[in-house]
Amino acid sequence: MAKQELPRLGITLGDPAGIGPEVALKALADPQVRGIARFAVFGPSAETWADLAGAAPEFLFGRCALPEWDGKVEGVHLVVVPGADAESRRAGTERGRATAAGGEASIRMLLAAIEAARAGRLDGLVTAPISKEAIHLAGYPWPGHTELLAEKFGAREVAMMFAGGPFRVVLVTIHLALVEAIRALNVKLIVGKMRLASNALKRCFGLEVPRLGVLGLNPHAGEAGRFGHEEREIIGPAIEEAKAAGLCAFGPLAPDTAFLQAMQGKFDCLVALYHDQGLIALKTVAFDSSVNITLGLPIVRTSPDHGTAYDIAGRGEANPESMKQAIRLAAEMLRRSRKPDAAPRAGTP
Amino acid sequence: MAKQELPRLGITLGDPAGIGPEVALKALADPQVRGIARFAVFGPSAETWADLAGAAPEFLFGRCALPEWDGKVEGVHLVVVPGADAESRRAGTERGRATAAGGEASIRMLLAAIEAARAGRLDGLVTAPISKEAIHLAGYPWPGHTELLAEKFGAREVAMMFAGGPFRVVLVTIHLALVEAIRALNVKLIVGKMRLASNALKRCFGLEVPRLGVLGLNPHAGEAGRFGHEEREIIGPAIEEAKAAGLCAFGPLAPDTAFLQAMQGKFDCLVALYHDQGLIALKTVAFDSSVNITLGLPIVRTSPDHGTAYDIAGRGEANPESMKQAIRLAAEMLRRSRKPDAAPRAGTP
Repeated sequence: MAKQELPRLGITLGDPAGIGPEVALKALADPQVRGIARFAVFGPSAETWADLAGAAPEFLFGRCALPEWDGKVEGVHLVVVPGADAESRRAGTERGRATAAGGEASIRMLLAAIEAARAGRLDGLVTAPISKEAIHLAGYPWPGHTELLAEKFGAREVAMMFAGGPFRVVLVTIHLALVEAIRALNVKLIVGKMRLASNALKRCFGLEVPRLGVLGLNPHAGEAGRFGHEEREIIGPAIEEAKAAGLCAFGPLAPDTAFLQAMQGKFDCLVALYHDQGLIALKTVAFDSSVNITLGLPIVRTSPDHGTAYDIAGRGEANPESMKQAIRLAAEMLRRSRKPDAAPRAGTP
Repeated sequence: MAKQELPRLGITLGDPAGIGPEVALKALADPQVRGIARFAVFGPSAETWADLAGAAPEFLFGRCALPEWDGKVEGVHLVVVPGADAESRRAGTERGRATAAGGEASIRMLLAAIEAARAGRLDGLVTAPISKEAIHLAGYPWPGHTELLAEKFGAREVAMMFAGGPFRVVLVTIHLALVEAIRALNVKLIVGKMRLASNALKRCFGLEVPRLGVLGLNPHAGEAGRFGHEEREIIGPAIEEAKAAGLCAFGPLAPDTAFLQAMQGKFDCLVALYHDQGLIALKTVAFDSSVNITLGLPIVRTSPDHGTAYDIAGRGEANPESMKQAIRLAAEMLRRSRKPDAAPRAGTP
């Protein structure tokens, strides 16, 4: 990608029966969002998209089949994915619920976008929400975007980072029952996520020495072993190993005050050990603008931090702010990964 | 307590080597705070208090030994607790650390205040922070205020509620390692805390039908059993049992979005299953003004939501806001428990 060019972002519309087509359309209808990248939208026909979104994508610069889009022209192009139109129409007739047709359409759009990225035609990918259930109904094995992307890009290790309001948070474990998440913790796992976070913060966020704040597992981070031993046996040693490898890390932090410290600018990113530990403060403080980032892929990938929201699909009420933020952040990460400049500290992701 | 009278509040100064004496003095130095109750401060001599707090309690209306204070006169009275002065002086010479002298002084103040309450001379109690370690050094068995108060008042079941910013939160488990907190969960325990919360919200917060939001344990509240079974086996049944007993309860809620819903006014109080689940959002959003309330005692008891803060003791830097809030809330709870009036919803505790 030449230095002065806008980054090439792929957008997938997600489950046709959810709010993905609507938030993508609303986001791209904003000229300020359209101006920050060259876009290839992987979806059904423009007519179907319009029907699903409740408004026409009047901003489209052109429509094309996949190999035609080379990312050289600015504006928003619609890449009509083979087979996605009929399946999307079918899913659209059953708005607001998971169907095999919706799952099929979701996966086709994604696979087409991944193919384009692997062929060097995309710098980044922003994905609207899909439904795990719909994907299973369509007979595909992946539980979500992250696993599919990791497999197709051959990524050995990936991590989920969330950016919202004053916070960046990386999760060590994600969709596991809490007892299983605790059982899954080990030094190697934690250090691996810390490394991915630190590398991403350097490469894509312009931070020279990213400061990671690693949370403890227990109340008050165990209070010197009084409430649990994971801090001494696993988390502390993981922090030491990461530091020995050159990372800048602090902790184990008392979980209930770590987010306040992050808000005060003490850390560039928090490392949370389980789903809710990482997401409670984030979703409370930055409820409609937080973004999900997949670390460990050869491309930048972001997504809005919400699901298909079947319950409000088709009503025109969906808030596109998180989708807009996902696009802005992907473009910003790509800009920074080209030319390092002044480091934004936590609070200005 | 006669209807038009100000409530009688006892204040204990907490560990003399911590910030308790300072925040209590700063709080009571505020005429607006002094005007909301008649105060009995249980502490050392006024001179020792002044030395520990870095300023003299010039607002004192009088000083007296314990049986003399009958709460009939308005203003702030200092009840000089036998033995507390020498121990406080001793602890004061070792500022910023846990000592047996500090623990001894802390406990003596507390026991004197409890005695006054049991004798019907106090309506409520606001306690400045003590140190668990100092109390153990002094040879006492209680891990904290709550256990001591429960024992001395003969309370069979108590619960900790936190009020701060837009949130009220009751904890089902408190200072347990996370694995042990999960193991400790059962229907009876959860229903018991829900009952205490609902009763307190009716009696002391003026809510006719308190709406409790009960959090799930696992990501997305288990997503229909995909990530853990506690929602189906324990939390759901607890909510059903509570509803059958006439409580208004919702859940199990996805923990990461429950606080946002509470901010939007959907619940009057959240019921959190473990320490950090309840406190992460609260301490992030209401970091310097949240208050701890003990439910299940025959008197109203509040305390600031911070510890002895040994690291800043004696510097004059301690923020009294949480102590002020604790006093305001205790007075407000006592006012409401006398005459029910318009119910404040969540967000206006």
